[in-house]
Amino acid sequence: MNAPEPVDTLIEPRWIVPVRPANVVLEGHAIAIDGGRIRAVLPAADAACAFRSRAVVRLPEHAVIPGLVNAHTHASMALLRGVGDDMPLQRWLTERIWPLERELVGEEFVAHGARLAAVEMLRAGVTTCSDMYFYPDVVARTLTAVGMRAVVGINAIEFPTAYAADADDYLRRGLQARDALRDEPLVSFTLAPHAPYTVSDATLARVATLAEELDLPVHIHVHETAHEVEESVRLHGVRPLHRLARFGLLSERLIAVHSVHLDDREIDELARASASVVHCPVSNLKLASGIARLPALLDAGVNVALGTDGAASNNRLDMLDEARFAALLAKAVAGEASALPAAAALECATLNGARALGLADRIGSIEAGKEADLVAVELASPEVAPLFDPVSHLLYASGREHVTDVWVAGRHVVQARQLASDDENAQVRAALASAAAWQNKCRRLLRK
Amino acid sequence: MNAPEPVDTLIEPRWIVPVRPANVVLEGHAIAIDGGRIRAVLPAADAACAFRSRAVVRLPEHAVIPGLVNAHTHASMALLRGVGDDMPLQRWLTERIWPLERELVGEEFVAHGARLAAVEMLRAGVTTCSDMYFYPDVVARTLTAVGMRAVVGINAIEFPTAYAADADDYLRRGLQARDALRDEPLVSFTLAPHAPYTVSDATLARVATLAEELDLPVHIHVHETAHEVEESVRLHGVRPLHRLARFGLLSERLIAVHSVHLDDREIDELARASASVVHCPVSNLKLASGIARLPALLDAGVNVALGTDGAASNNRLDMLDEARFAALLAKAVAGEASALPAAAALECATLNGARALGLADRIGSIEAGKEADLVAVELASPEVAPLFDPVSHLLYASGREHVTDVWVAGRHVVQARQLASDDENAQVRAALASAAAWQNKCRRLLRK
Repeated sequence: MNAPEPVDTLIEPRWIVPVRPANVVLEGHAIAIDGGRIRAVLPAADAACAFRSRAVVRLPEHAVIPGLVNAHTHASMALLRGVGDDMPLQRWLTERIWPLERELVGEEFVAHGARLAAVEMLRAGVTTCSDMYFYPDVVARTLTAVGMRAVVGINAIEFPTAYAADADDYLRRGLQARDALRDEPLVSFTLAPHAPYTVSDATLARVATLAEELDLPVHIHVHETAHEVEESVRLHGVRPLHRLARFGLLSERLIAVHSVHLDDREIDELARASASVVHCPVSNLKLASGIARLPALLDAGVNVALGTDGAASNNRLDMLDEARFAALLAKAVAGEASALPAAAALECATLNGARALGLADRIGSIEAGKEADLVAVELASPEVAPLFDPVSHLLYASGREHVTDVWVAGRHVVQARQLASDDENAQVRAALASAAAWQNKCRRLLRK
Repeated sequence: MNAPEPVDTLIEPRWIVPVRPANVVLEGHAIAIDGGRIRAVLPAADAACAFRSRAVVRLPEHAVIPGLVNAHTHASMALLRGVGDDMPLQRWLTERIWPLERELVGEEFVAHGARLAAVEMLRAGVTTCSDMYFYPDVVARTLTAVGMRAVVGINAIEFPTAYAADADDYLRRGLQARDALRDEPLVSFTLAPHAPYTVSDATLARVATLAEELDLPVHIHVHETAHEVEESVRLHGVRPLHRLARFGLLSERLIAVHSVHLDDREIDELARASASVVHCPVSNLKLASGIARLPALLDAGVNVALGTDGAASNNRLDMLDEARFAALLAKAVAGEASALPAAAALECATLNGARALGLADRIGSIEAGKEADLVAVELASPEVAPLFDPVSHLLYASGREHVTDVWVAGRHVVQARQLASDDENAQVRAALASAAAWQNKCRRLLRK
């Protein structure tokens, strides 16, 4: 018999929902973590013999799931949460969001907003987010400082901001950020042209070239509203997805965010291209954009990930909630209660997000060899009793408030519902204080 | 100057959202409670002079709202939470719910289920629920024992159960329950024929007569699925609502639960009759029944209340969540982000529920003279920062986990997130233990 192998951590939950293999719930199993990676998933009795662990975390009433992947957000917009709800979309943009961003956006706003968002997301079990905003270097450094894994966009848009002068300048600055952060293990990049309606043909061509050269995904808002599709036909003679196709962007690199208004042919084209869609159900409802055709997308074999969008149009960064909306809406859209069952919705919120971001070999499921991004959800309160199936409760009955522990690359970043790095709640208090300060600035600007 | 008037309790929250007057948020105000009723809502500084209170509850980071009214549930079905998710409706009913109910339903099941539901609802700020199930006397006694206000249905259905032999027997037993509970201040009744497709013409006629004689609302599932409407046309020659109209049941007494599949004419008829609709958005999505036409109902002036339905088809009894679904879905259905704004959704979840149940003179808003059913929601965490409008956060960002204190008829039934009556958590532990026991019984039955 071999001597037990030393490992950093052994986690012993009541249930493990590994996502891969699919449709499996392991009871009485353990997860061994070493060097930030999952060393093994095995029966707890075997783990006691096979491993000698420096730390053992017993979670007798918890389900452990892969870290949630928020495949589309604008983290720093957490500072604009609730600044203009229930307004028609155009008024919301022109009277609230754009004027405020024009005045406020700079390194400090972006850093404070990303910190607020990271505190919210980590406590809710979101271990990775794919961000699209200005100052991606600042966002990446802030998210990882709080403890998250960050995928940030080398963004591009055709209007100047404090951050950059024109589309080329955006791309240049984003590429510099990528160079500066190349050794950060928790940071990766996408190319993130804002949307077909805000980016020129020249910029799309440049993005396509860079995506090939640098082997990066292309993260873009597309087919969000019916208006966007109509305007593209009017101005360019084709629908937005076909305009992207002209530049070779309808490919396995494409992360087509929203994709609310798709016809059958476009769904088929996305599937054949092996592109990914990021479904943002709450934002699409709140801005009255519509309800994406999830059942058709999934039937066609499209990789569907989930995203919260920014907190200005949600107003949460809560991926368990997003997965529940996705599952419930899919049933109504399909006219069939068995559409998008709980396990499939959880896969959208984890592994499919990792796939979209090109990280499926590293995260998204609880499998030996992957990095240890894990979330423990306590299933012990009256709200989740009785319990016939933990996966059902994870989707339909529990919520982010039941997340107790979170690991990112093996680091135990949330412990007993608190940020582990957060001595005496200093980080949370700082996030709240800066939110209050920016709130006052917003109020003054809106009164002008 | 007059001597200060003695009162039982003074509540001093950061914000009060009284629902009436509409679209008002009071800051720096107090609520004086005496004898279970709201004595006054006034500036906190004036309250200090006007009242001498035995208890003062300071809630410096909280919004106080009227108690939430769950206008349609089957509380005892909390014991069947998650027993069959993601199944086609007919299989769910015939393979899960009906066989289990046939074996399990009796006084003990109903009491244990209602207790579990009451613990969940009270902690979530639901102070009143309108229940439809067997043994309404047991439900009423259980809900009020935990601390809630209960509206229970004198139910009727055309098949025998352990509870009653036939429709007349159901009605007889329900009327006996009403007599037995006539002196309970927190209990009131509806007539609750299950649905047009499960109740005969003779029973509907009897219900209509009783409703007039006893001055009771009529609480019924109606137009929940397209199939139900088609079958009614096939069997009775009319759609279900018109069948009810034949018996005079399309009136201001009608509480039309679900009302998913309505045409323009029916919406107009509901409005002209001053009937109420109970919208159950989560259940309607989960069972793939469809999405009710809230914008059209509200535009027509129909009183729209909200309900969770039973936990078997939700799987929460969470009215803040239900209000958020109602607001978000209404925007997508209307194609307009300003549809069903936050304040209107909160009114649906409170005052409109009280109106439907005939209790609007007693509960549903924070006004002098009404009974003191109140809920405090803490708005202090990163998830609700910054804060531009507490009503927006109540709907879109906070959740039941932020409910800290609840009063029913002036009794402080939840304090600091715990049931006040719950010495050493005995009630919660008992609810969990009985849920586990019934879970085991269900599992054994389903294995047969």
